[in-house]
Amino acid sequence: MAKKVLIVYAHQNSRSFNAAAKNAAVDILTDQGCIVEVSDLYAMASKAAATAEDLKGNLTCAEAFRYPDESKLSWEQGNLSYEIAKEQSKLAEADLVIFQFPMYWFGVPGILKGWFDWVLTNGFDFSQDEPYGLEIFKGKKAVLSLTTGCRTAMFCVDDDMNVTLWPLQNGVLHHCGFQVLAPQVFWAPEFADAEERWNMLASWRLRLEGLLEEEPLSFTPLVCFNEKTSQLKPDDHEKHASK
Amino acid sequence: MAKKVLIVYAHQNSRSFNAAAKNAAVDILTDQGCIVEVSDLYAMASKAAATAEDLKGNLTCAEAFRYPDESKLSWEQGNLSYEIAKEQSKLAEADLVIFQFPMYWFGVPGILKGWFDWVLTNGFDFSQDEPYGLEIFKGKKAVLSLTTGCRTAMFCVDDDMNVTLWPLQNGVLHHCGFQVLAPQVFWAPEFADAEERWNMLASWRLRLEGLLEEEPLSFTPLVCFNEKTSQLKPDDHEKHASK
Repeated sequence: MAKKVLIVYAHQNSRSFNAAAKNAAVDILTDQGCIVEVSDLYAMASKAAATAEDLKGNLTCAEAFRYPDESKLSWEQGNLSYEIAKEQSKLAEADLVIFQFPMYWFGVPGILKGWFDWVLTNGFDFSQDEPYGLEIFKGKKAVLSLTTGCRTAMFCVDDDMNVTLWPLQNGVLHHCGFQVLAPQVFWAPEFADAEERWNMLASWRLRLEGLLEEEPLSFTPLVCFNEKTSQLKPDDHEKHASK
Repeated sequence: MAKKVLIVYAHQNSRSFNAAAKNAAVDILTDQGCIVEVSDLYAMASKAAATAEDLKGNLTCAEAFRYPDESKLSWEQGNLSYEIAKEQSKLAEADLVIFQFPMYWFGVPGILKGWFDWVLTNGFDFSQDEPYGLEIFKGKKAVLSLTTGCRTAMFCVDDDMNVTLWPLQNGVLHHCGFQVLAPQVFWAPEFADAEERWNMLASWRLRLEGLLEEEPLSFTPLVCFNEKTSQLKPDDHEKHASK
């Protein structure tokens, strides 16, 4: 059966490097027989604020409104807004999700952070009782594909971009249960010449050929941490400390 | 002269714990003689998407629109939208900025991430030529004050919340030049009983009494990293590795 791919794309300009990277993914994966869907957040004028307007039913506790709780109840009752339900249904069907965005302030643009906030509803995408792995997400892969506005040193701790990306890769994606693939980082394409940019895209195209078969990153499982102190349990320290 | 405080507040509900924490800050700091201003992002219906609508002048390169570049030019020409100019002027005057928000997905809510994206314009708040310290921000202090939706283990690596907060504290605040104070973390007030919540607020009120005099966190300066490899230079490794 054809694999399904969702690309969540957050750039304002259809002639940007991000657009080219997104188009490359659409082309290559479609050529491989995948069914590819794009959520173009700026084109959708996707709202970024998580508000009571997202919820169609009555609030259970309007006075003490808490978005995570109320949206969980709305999800259980089928009362999320059409826009949220639509994004959730795309996610539920996808075998692979690519997030394509320019890094703003060491993270995703506000419009994409908002998408995380209102699409990844407690219950649908994660569970406080069962963090890091609802059944629905266990077979799905996800990858962050991003451009930076400057060279490496700014974002890396000891040459490791994964520290900057930890809240996104561990906190959002792994937390939902996704198999998280290594990030695709395009370093400062705006400072590169045409040939360098072409090479960056060529290397992305090559990677896309085998993306669905890539092995995911490994994360230290939550059970290895002491619940009270948050520290790695002694038995697991040696095994996982180097990660 | 009276100190000026800006509270950037991102909660939908005026009866929330976040609202109580914000109100405590307004009360204590006003009592100390400070001039306190609140940017209530949901009440302002603050937009979170960074788009060309933020820029009043002509775009220099509409075809290859890049928000960071265009907003920098608009800032230089005084062509940023009224909303942005107003937030920037509050920031420019503040001696202390408190960001009060519930943590969503290991980070700030989309509406606050959007505020960072469009208020912290290249040129005004940071400079690629002079990262980590434009003159205007060097005397300002900033503190993240946040609630979590669950207990500690989820957010901490070896008991250290600063890994989760690194992109915000180092990437946004320290990068602008702020003196970053230790974060104020309210662990899962929704699971606390009334007395525990009261104690949390009491301890925040106590901290607020001396907040303006607190010593900031220390960050390893960018000059200690090798520009090409992003690794700590050998001389600095011993000195800074433990941070």
